[in-house]
Amino acid sequence: MAREPGVGGDQVEGRRAVHELLRAGRRSVRTVYVSSSAVDEPLVREIVDLAGSNARVVAPDKLEHYARTDAHQGVVAIAAPLRAADFDELIARDDAFLVALDGVTDPRNLGAIIRSAETAGASGIVVGRHRAAHVTPAVTKAAAGAVEHVPIALVGGIPNALERARRAGCWTVGLDDGGDTSLFDFDLADQRIVLVLGAEGRGLARLTRERCDMLVRIPVHGHVPSLNVAAAATLACHEVARRRHK
Amino acid sequence: MAREPGVGGDQVEGRRAVHELLRAGRRSVRTVYVSSSAVDEPLVREIVDLAGSNARVVAPDKLEHYARTDAHQGVVAIAAPLRAADFDELIARDDAFLVALDGVTDPRNLGAIIRSAETAGASGIVVGRHRAAHVTPAVTKAAAGAVEHVPIALVGGIPNALERARRAGCWTVGLDDGGDTSLFDFDLADQRIVLVLGAEGRGLARLTRERCDMLVRIPVHGHVPSLNVAAAATLACHEVARRRHK
Repeated sequence: MAREPGVGGDQVEGRRAVHELLRAGRRSVRTVYVSSSAVDEPLVREIVDLAGSNARVVAPDKLEHYARTDAHQGVVAIAAPLRAADFDELIARDDAFLVALDGVTDPRNLGAIIRSAETAGASGIVVGRHRAAHVTPAVTKAAAGAVEHVPIALVGGIPNALERARRAGCWTVGLDDGGDTSLFDFDLADQRIVLVLGAEGRGLARLTRERCDMLVRIPVHGHVPSLNVAAAATLACHEVARRRHK
Repeated sequence: MAREPGVGGDQVEGRRAVHELLRAGRRSVRTVYVSSSAVDEPLVREIVDLAGSNARVVAPDKLEHYARTDAHQGVVAIAAPLRAADFDELIARDDAFLVALDGVTDPRNLGAIIRSAETAGASGIVVGRHRAAHVTPAVTKAAAGAVEHVPIALVGGIPNALERARRAGCWTVGLDDGGDTSLFDFDLADQRIVLVLGAEGRGLARLTRERCDMLVRIPVHGHVPSLNVAAAATLACHEVARRRHK
């Protein structure tokens, strides 16, 4: 049997991300490396306390050696990888609020999207098994702990996943500069929903666009024609949250 | 007389950013370096056409040598620096819609904020002369051309600038996790306004917070307690836009 590619997430970098990894306690943590130059900062002291016997204070250059981003803030944790969520379970939930990413490749964008989705109360993230960025250390840093809480499902392809979501009763809503409806006028936000975002630069692939029940656009009022994909995801997720909680 | 530190922006990297630099035509462009490996991409071909005799196709390793980010996408332009906007002119405008940044240091966050502000129709960005990130190549890349359109003012300190803005008749609204009012309930958006965002991690400085007429929070519905500063700026700017244009 072919080995299932995992979600990743086994190396977590950055203070908020490692703090939340330890606080949430959802997966086992092997070692938390802390730079001796950072150990007196308040959040870092809490991290050392939470990590207990797994904490190892090391020299700054040693930490640089372990780190795989330049934004580690003096803290790197090694943990059990994240477990992929079951896509069919995610789409079956009564309150399904999913964010499907069709080829987002930049790790900071992926991490920022996971963080914004989690703060909006999204029930899951859906990424393509092969084409998307997985949860690298740069993703964990940008997600600031959100990967501990929001389930991430891997699917064979986004168009096929959208078809399954529709059959399960979810509305599939693509973010697209050419969408007919403004994000702020669309009234499906209190339904079970899958928001779909395309790759940086090229947007939604044709087949993905065709599988969406509707396409919504974010109104722009300047000269630059579009938002960054993480900014678009933030607006869309929090618009759903605003309508669900008003 | 001491030399005024400029806004920066003289090196522009990334396809969208360089395309918009040339299309907008607001400042002189000395040279546009294009990697020979990128020259056949549609947007790059347009860049070469727009740059005319200033375009120089170079080998990929030569371009790496000129580039100061790893996200240049094969295009680096050298241009006249951006000119700082006059803060007093910005706060005197009838439609003033400013975004003041109190110590945002990450270039990608700064660039993303400028892009989101521009797409929301903001009339200017305000940054501290000494403490903030200025417009580096990484900022131009993340701003995707927005720096060509949205004026950027440098001020001695954000608290003092907020005081001047208030005296000029603007409302000063800080984004703060502990704010009394939800972003989605605050009704000043059609007034002249300065949105104020704090540094990554620590948020608004005490003195800045005290100078705000009101503090608004972004409602969160998960476990992660706050949004990334660029995500918060995106939501706040587009909430103002939504109310101004409805």
